[in-house]
Amino acid sequence: MSTADIQQDVLEVARRARTASHTLALATRAEKDRALHAMADALAERHDEVLAANADDVARAEADGTPANIVDRLRLTPDRLDAMSQGLRDVAGLPDPVGEVVRGSTLANGLELRQVRVPFGVVGMIYEARPNVTADAAGICLKSGNAVLLRGSSSARSSNAAIVAVLRDAVTTAGLDADVVQLVPGETRDSVKALMRARGHVDVLIPRGGAGLIRSVVEESTVPVIETGVGNCHVYVDRAADLDKALAIVLNAKTHRTSVCNAAESLLVHADVAEQFLPRVVAALQDAGVTIHGDPAFGAHDGVEPATDDDYAQEYLSLDISAAVVPDLDAAIAHIRRFSSQHSDAIVTEDQGAARRFVAAVDSAAVLVNASTRFTDGGEFGFGAEIGISTQKLHARGPMGLPEMTSTKYVVTGDGHVR
Amino acid sequence: MSTADIQQDVLEVARRARTASHTLALATRAEKDRALHAMADALAERHDEVLAANADDVARAEADGTPANIVDRLRLTPDRLDAMSQGLRDVAGLPDPVGEVVRGSTLANGLELRQVRVPFGVVGMIYEARPNVTADAAGICLKSGNAVLLRGSSSARSSNAAIVAVLRDAVTTAGLDADVVQLVPGETRDSVKALMRARGHVDVLIPRGGAGLIRSVVEESTVPVIETGVGNCHVYVDRAADLDKALAIVLNAKTHRTSVCNAAESLLVHADVAEQFLPRVVAALQDAGVTIHGDPAFGAHDGVEPATDDDYAQEYLSLDISAAVVPDLDAAIAHIRRFSSQHSDAIVTEDQGAARRFVAAVDSAAVLVNASTRFTDGGEFGFGAEIGISTQKLHARGPMGLPEMTSTKYVVTGDGHVR
Repeated sequence: MSTADIQQDVLEVARRARTASHTLALATRAEKDRALHAMADALAERHDEVLAANADDVARAEADGTPANIVDRLRLTPDRLDAMSQGLRDVAGLPDPVGEVVRGSTLANGLELRQVRVPFGVVGMIYEARPNVTADAAGICLKSGNAVLLRGSSSARSSNAAIVAVLRDAVTTAGLDADVVQLVPGETRDSVKALMRARGHVDVLIPRGGAGLIRSVVEESTVPVIETGVGNCHVYVDRAADLDKALAIVLNAKTHRTSVCNAAESLLVHADVAEQFLPRVVAALQDAGVTIHGDPAFGAHDGVEPATDDDYAQEYLSLDISAAVVPDLDAAIAHIRRFSSQHSDAIVTEDQGAARRFVAAVDSAAVLVNASTRFTDGGEFGFGAEIGISTQKLHARGPMGLPEMTSTKYVVTGDGHVR
Repeated sequence: MSTADIQQDVLEVARRARTASHTLALATRAEKDRALHAMADALAERHDEVLAANADDVARAEADGTPANIVDRLRLTPDRLDAMSQGLRDVAGLPDPVGEVVRGSTLANGLELRQVRVPFGVVGMIYEARPNVTADAAGICLKSGNAVLLRGSSSARSSNAAIVAVLRDAVTTAGLDADVVQLVPGETRDSVKALMRARGHVDVLIPRGGAGLIRSVVEESTVPVIETGVGNCHVYVDRAADLDKALAIVLNAKTHRTSVCNAAESLLVHADVAEQFLPRVVAALQDAGVTIHGDPAFGAHDGVEPATDDDYAQEYLSLDISAAVVPDLDAAIAHIRRFSSQHSDAIVTEDQGAARRFVAAVDSAAVLVNASTRFTDGGEFGFGAEIGISTQKLHARGPMGLPEMTSTKYVVTGDGHVR
């Protein structure tokens, strides 16, 4: 298909999404929750269909020599499908963000002013391997009143097509317009480009995936973007740290799950506690299979690799960590300002003044005191559902739940008021 | 100067702004308010200097044959300078948005979660003729903890340079870093381009001015943008309207001030009241000097020009209004969805059901019931200060006051918590 044809096709689904979004914006919570339960039921009833489509994707990935961990992400099982259904039911159980009055007042002239949450309208999602994102995003967008255009990776195309077919049928059964959930047509980069250029047709784009994907969307899109999920997260062990807590936090932040954006990628230690802490933390990390890329102070320990600036800038997403000793708190802050991706950065300290200064000076989506960076998560924060973790400053920052998937409008009610 | 040199110069001021923003983010409300009063005092004390610079701009504009209304916008007077000082004092009197806890809870595991307002960091303002925006923007940014890079129009370059020199001296006197207020160097479009490409160095760009300026920033910028102020605003007179209120609202919305974004540009009238209302509204608008660009129903009246789709799409900013009769409420909503710039749209009706449906279905920054579109304004809404009116859905929508000039961060406090 030519680039122009793909553009036309993408604009056509966007137009259908816009029309569907007008009805969805007016749907009641009860209508939306009914659709979410219908989607969950349909996924449960049509396991075989989705698993068969997924088997095609898995077979193709294996034939292409895709690494086993990527194939595992792609693979659906009855348990994973049940989890997708449960996710949709969980979203149905959450409050409807649409219509929430964010603020309100009666002005001196008697005008009634209400700032009310409304859907964005049409949301575009661009994401990589995991097919469960397809159902999660559809559910969160539907509940927040948004029509969604889904552009998963081509490696998951059969799975995504099967899931979307099931979900659309369920939406129709529940009495809503199926076009609130649509796949973006086309499997080449041209269709992603068309989506990024559909300003006015798509209200917001949310890329989820690796740093390369996100950077390209942020740079090329004329549609407003919510940037997500690149995490070069730090743990700073202060002079006044309880070193037992510090050890537990560093190990948890690095090793609890390595492939996630809230995993720690860099360790900073105050010089005053380096002599005491370094032998312990080096041994514990190495016992857990972690390779340390350290400055000369760390380098004095066996098995530590020398670190370059590239290491400090890196989001490893693996059993690797960069490490340095810093002369004081301000040096730790300066290091974090230079290298952090402003996702999640933690201080371990019993010193209230140091904690206050770190919290005020470190400008990240989440700043943690005596807690693992792994807590930056919609589920952990109690949001009930998460569409991603924003690392930008505009609109939403940190884990995004249902309220972050809305805009607002002012409703001004008078009785013939003029200026 | 070469494009590369200008880029370097713009990045250099952005870097200085970043450094200054780190200190400003930690400044207390008292320190910031002291600086705002010092800025107001300095502008009052140095009238002559600013007026002399302004006289240069005015002379140049007149020599270039600039239209009188544009020259008037450019011209400063002692009264206008006093108003700028008063604006800075008003901002000092407003609550500090930084540090406000937007939400907070203690999680099941005892972690304390707080979502706190923080400054963006570095804000870029791109704006047209009025030099008062220079002081207004500097004041609002300083109070919200943001370093600002100001890029006014070259027609106001002497005025803006003089105002910024005065403000920077005052900031220094008050003990803050003068680099929280800087002019963007360079007077060609290259410097605007460099600002729009300074992603990572500038956190948000706010263009204020005509539709052309805003469109070009939105399309070319890789820095996140808050789109402001294009207003193709509608007044819809429903079948159940009180026609006296309707007449007053239409006249006020169109003629109270024509050059502003919340002025009405289009009038829609329900067919059932057209026979009764059209003669009155046509006469009243024409008496006020308004040219009506109408559909055939309006065209039956003397002096009404025929309207094309271009008229319905137009933001006149003059004594012109497009007008049409619609068969019903849904046709009014469809017309508004097609042509509105989603700034401010009003319905005049005594029918609660019609008002509810209009409010729910019209997706604009402000939807007004029985009130003039002219009320969409930070001052009217009681915000005390306004940096612009956002017409986008991301981050802020409608009039933007101090809280809209902030982002948030999550502060998570534990006692050695791990997952």
